[in-house]
Amino acid sequence: MIQAGIIGGAGYTAGELIRLLLHHPAAAIRFVYSTSNAGNPLSDVHQDLLGETTQKFTNEIIPDVDVLFLCLGHGNSKAFLEANTFSEHTKIIDLSNDFRLTPDAVFQEKHFVYGLPELYKEDIENAQYIANPGCFATAIQLALLPLAEAGLLEEDIHVNAVTGATGAGTSMSPTSHFPWRDNNFSYYKPFTHQHLGEIGQSLKQLQPSYDSDVLFMPNRGNFSRGIFATAYTTFGKSLEEAKTLYREFYKHAAFTTISDKELHLKQVVNTNKCLIHLHKHRNKLLITSVIDNLTKGASGQAIHNMNLIFGLEETLGLELKASYF
Amino acid sequence: MIQAGIIGGAGYTAGELIRLLLHHPAAAIRFVYSTSNAGNPLSDVHQDLLGETTQKFTNEIIPDVDVLFLCLGHGNSKAFLEANTFSEHTKIIDLSNDFRLTPDAVFQEKHFVYGLPELYKEDIENAQYIANPGCFATAIQLALLPLAEAGLLEEDIHVNAVTGATGAGTSMSPTSHFPWRDNNFSYYKPFTHQHLGEIGQSLKQLQPSYDSDVLFMPNRGNFSRGIFATAYTTFGKSLEEAKTLYREFYKHAAFTTISDKELHLKQVVNTNKCLIHLHKHRNKLLITSVIDNLTKGASGQAIHNMNLIFGLEETLGLELKASYF
Amino acid sequence: MIQAGIIGGAGYTAGELIRLLLHHPAAAIRFVYSTSNAGNPLSDVHQDLLGETTQKFTNEIIPDVDVLFLCLGHGNSKAFLEANTFSEHTKIIDLSNDFRLTPDAVFQEKHFVYGLPELYKEDIENAQYIANPGCFATAIQLALLPLAEAGLLEEDIHVNAVTGATGAGTSMSPTSHFPWRDNNFSYYKPFTHQHLGEIGQSLKQLQPSYDSDVLFMPNRGNFSRGIFATAYTTFGKSLEEAKTLYREFYKHAAFTTISDKELHLKQVVNTNKCLIHLHKHRNKLLITSVIDNLTKGASGQAIHNMNLIFGLEETLGLELKASYF
Amino acid sequence: MIQAGIIGGAGYTAGELIRLLLHHPAAAIRFVYSTSNAGNPLSDVHQDLLGETTQKFTNEIIPDVDVLFLCLGHGNSKAFLEANTFSEHTKIIDLSNDFRLTPDAVFQEKHFVYGLPELYKEDIENAQYIANPGCFATAIQLALLPLAEAGLLEEDIHVNAVTGATGAGTSMSPTSHFPWRDNNFSYYKPFTHQHLGEIGQSLKQLQPSYDSDVLFMPNRGNFSRGIFATAYTTFGKSLEEAKTLYREFYKHAAFTTISDKELHLKQVVNTNKCLIHLHKHRNKLLITSVIDNLTKGASGQAIHNMNLIFGLEETLGLELKASYF
Repeated sequence: MIQAGIIGGAGYTAGELIRLLLHHPAAAIRFVYSTSNAGNPLSDVHQDLLGETTQKFTNEIIPDVDVLFLCLGHGNSKAFLEANTFSEHTKIIDLSNDFRLTPDAVFQEKHFVYGLPELYKEDIENAQYIANPGCFATAIQLALLPLAEAGLLEEDIHVNAVTGATGAGTSMSPTSHFPWRDNNFSYYKPFTHQHLGEIGQSLKQLQPSYDSDVLFMPNRGNFSRGIFATAYTTFGKSLEEAKTLYREFYKHAAFTTISDKELHLKQVVNTNKCLIHLHKHRNKLLITSVIDNLTKGASGQAIHNMNLIFGLEETLGLELKASYF
Repeated sequence: MIQAGIIGGAGYTAGELIRLLLHHPAAAIRFVYSTSNAGNPLSDVHQDLLGETTQKFTNEIIPDVDVLFLCLGHGNSKAFLEANTFSEHTKIIDLSNDFRLTPDAVFQEKHFVYGLPELYKEDIENAQYIANPGCFATAIQLALLPLAEAGLLEEDIHVNAVTGATGAGTSMSPTSHFPWRDNNFSYYKPFTHQHLGEIGQSLKQLQPSYDSDVLFMPNRGNFSRGIFATAYTTFGKSLEEAKTLYREFYKHAAFTTISDKELHLKQVVNTNKCLIHLHKHRNKLLITSVIDNLTKGASGQAIHNMNLIFGLEETLGLELKASYF
Repeated sequence: MIQAGIIGGAGYTAGELIRLLLHHPAAAIRFVYSTSNAGNPLSDVHQDLLGETTQKFTNEIIPDVDVLFLCLGHGNSKAFLEANTFSEHTKIIDLSNDFRLTPDAVFQEKHFVYGLPELYKEDIENAQYIANPGCFATAIQLALLPLAEAGLLEEDIHVNAVTGATGAGTSMSPTSHFPWRDNNFSYYKPFTHQHLGEIGQSLKQLQPSYDSDVLFMPNRGNFSRGIFATAYTTFGKSLEEAKTLYREFYKHAAFTTISDKELHLKQVVNTNKCLIHLHKHRNKLLITSVIDNLTKGASGQAIHNMNLIFGLEETLGLELKASYF
Repeated sequence: MIQAGIIGGAGYTAGELIRLLLHHPAAAIRFVYSTSNAGNPLSDVHQDLLGETTQKFTNEIIPDVDVLFLCLGHGNSKAFLEANTFSEHTKIIDLSNDFRLTPDAVFQEKHFVYGLPELYKEDIENAQYIANPGCFATAIQLALLPLAEAGLLEEDIHVNAVTGATGAGTSMSPTSHFPWRDNNFSYYKPFTHQHLGEIGQSLKQLQPSYDSDVLFMPNRGNFSRGIFATAYTTFGKSLEEAKTLYREFYKHAAFTTISDKELHLKQVVNTNKCLIHLHKHRNKLLITSVIDNLTKGASGQAIHNMNLIFGLEETLGLELKASYF
């Protein structure tokens, strides 16, 4: 059994990792580190776990686990790794944005591979350190990568995506206060969301010639989980050619499927899947991409990366029942 | 025009008071006091007011207003009145629970009348100081008062009520965090909610012989506003007799109506109405009562009291369009 | 008092008209026509009206009312006017899309004026027949008209808007079934929504030279009422110039206000307001526009048009308390 | 592999069965019968299944499957079994209420066992035909059975429970129309819900002397899945004694756990768990019970019964990741 440690155990992504690892046939949770909750049962915080585990949070780190998941706030992973030392064989999967961009990818002689399996599967299989992609970044890249790989991005890409309130984390804030958020809608950081860096980096990697803008409007939806993203851009070929391109690109993808029908968010909630739909309007190709922000957009993808690193079946522990309704 | 001051201007009930007073034909807002927001436009906090008023919060109190609304947290009204002096002619309507119970009703030689117009209309008309009822207390009393007045309460009363998240105020808390509250349900303070005091006091006032329990389960609903309350108890007479009793009791009530059909919460949201439905099952009378917790259950009732005190038409400024959907 | 008749009285927009007219100081409801509900109280269908009116639906039309509101499904207004005759002095305000486009605007020698007060106020004041704008069309036009009037539209306009479930009417459908819609998100009719005709017509009217596309993505939100719309396009001038332009354009508008702060949907729910926010990113101007689809986007705008036709104060009966939470 | 057939394959409970069986390590779906969808992929109806299965609905029944799940509307299972014949070895698990009550439990010489594993585990293990309990009935029985078994029920039991909109099925109705249900609350069938028969039957079975009422108020919540139930009744012993009693009763239960902390609905959504909490107020014991209506309250319990019948590990295929948020 792979022995796993989780750092920053009280947040949403840690909670999802715990849920996934508890049912994972080839991994076990060695410790869940949370200074503020040390000594308390995991189920005090992740209250659905009652009856499934009596494990407790700890403030002691076991440095020789096989895999370590960092579920810290953005900017805190570097500080944590500076303050703590782990075994040389320990794999580290970081869920923050600290190591996703190439200039940040080498830290303490650790080479972090960008953990988007649809793009870097082989690199991940051979990696020891993973920078797990952002949630919006995952949905949007999966919508655009086949075009970039084919060198078919030409002009500005117009992206609009809406995320659930779990995307803002467990910290309370006015825009996560129920009377505000309930039956409401709003955007934030128009055109300047921090995930644009990851997205642009991957597009450039596949199609170095592309130098137009990704115009990205991120929205706050009045639901808890999931990302519904649309992207459209000029596309000179036919819809059929687009479908062929996407089906080919994702033919070996374990979790990404092309849908002939229009999509809605709840098709993927509580799963590790990404569904993609293509539509052509005049000279524009419209790509829709839906994921669950906490699974495919975070913890599920982290487990996917773990499976790849350890040579396991990709889908192990990730064949999840959608909640759907 | 009646000149009104509002203390504690940043909370939900203050926001509702401002909305109601802005459109009230016989009243005007003289000042809205909020130390933390002093100098900022009201519309910075109550953001729907943009385009309706440019008035600002102030930290200066004008002591000779005609009516003063206290929208402070429970326990803070007394402290506020000790620290501040108002004109002798100033009417004070307190929305906290500081003065609702008889032992608390006289403070600084001010006699606070319990401001439930369906019960104490004449007293209110002659009052200078009002203790505005609690939201649950309003819904539940309106369900039970006709029985108590007729001396027909016999055994335990079983009350179950669910309130929206605005009931917990603007302060952020884990149970008002959107990812927790969304699509969730829970109770709190089973059988010991603080409004039981008000309810029992009114029942005793009308039917001194009644000495059974009000067993009240308060619930948190995953909606923003409104209270849906049911109460049932042993009732020896027929449904028709009950209907006659209730229609008679409320025949002069400006906002309370008996419905022959079953009720749902959204019939009253964003209005000052209370709808009541009666149903008989064997020897039990089931009374359903729905109100908006912020209007009929707080600020609308406060304006109703203001109207009564100043000899205005009861419904003035309170004929509100339901949002309904 | 203006005597009003309502045709198609059981739908959402008719319900809102009834709510508004019941409280309107200068108008009264003469009849509400609904063949399927004839003889039943209005409050059987519009259940929040219990206690406010005992008026009933009728299947008899009174042909000499002062104003007639047609709340029929799209395509049915023409058939209705062919089958029924009204007094020559009767004003008709049609809420369908039957007469909004210039080729449809003359019918039975009736000249229908497009009832967007921010654009055609004088024409409306002198009109007898009004084609009330669509809900999305209202939000999006109010976002774009100042640019068109100034002749500043240059390239494609990218519009993304989300509407509440009342936008799909009272007819039950799979995408309005609660278990599907709850916590879900989806789009429909990408780039081909029927309101594009109205929008393009107005833009062309103001800036005949404009011949780029309005690329409009309409979305279904999991809330009941409101439209949150964003539009962005190339804009060569500064943000300050844009603000000046918009403030100037709307300086006499009764319900449309420019907000310096970012917007959220609930600022306008259950009101007749439109709030607009401007943001500049590089060479793109982002315009946000929020309205309530049933009031400003339908019935409130119809009352606004009625007020203008009859020479009343524009805001009469439309100063509504936002539900906000 | 156990070969399973599903009858009535387009409804919510069938969808959940399909989701569970697709990931069940010891069972496979042989056919999903739906006359209206025959020939279409399962994922046309259960749209989250896209990418997981290409199986199609059929209108042909394979009569020798190992287990048959009947997901038909109440009253239709009998008619179906009269019209169709199955192999003698085929186990049948009926999810309707056709065979739950003792007078209905023998049909065509088939003896249906009431499939509540916490109560009749041994009978189920030896059964060929199962009447799967109702959703409310499951939550409420699990709250009350330990008291009944100990012979401690004395007086009336006061039950209040709220269910999600999936409880009303896929058929569209006014109370499942999103604009109505959203942010709303209501009850239905006060004190006369059809599940009272099952509940009373089990209580009588365990404590024949009990002859007071179960006063049950069923409510419609504005969420999609889950049941939150409370029950209270007179209880002469201490809270500690109650806890001991419940822990003892459920010590071998695979999915039912006693919680020392207060509960909320989302602790169990999308799982097969039941959580129970006990609270004492004066002489009343308050029992809270939460389940997911579609899993523990229907399809998950059906799989649990299948596991028991076939001698499998109880939890096989039912260790589900909660969606929680």
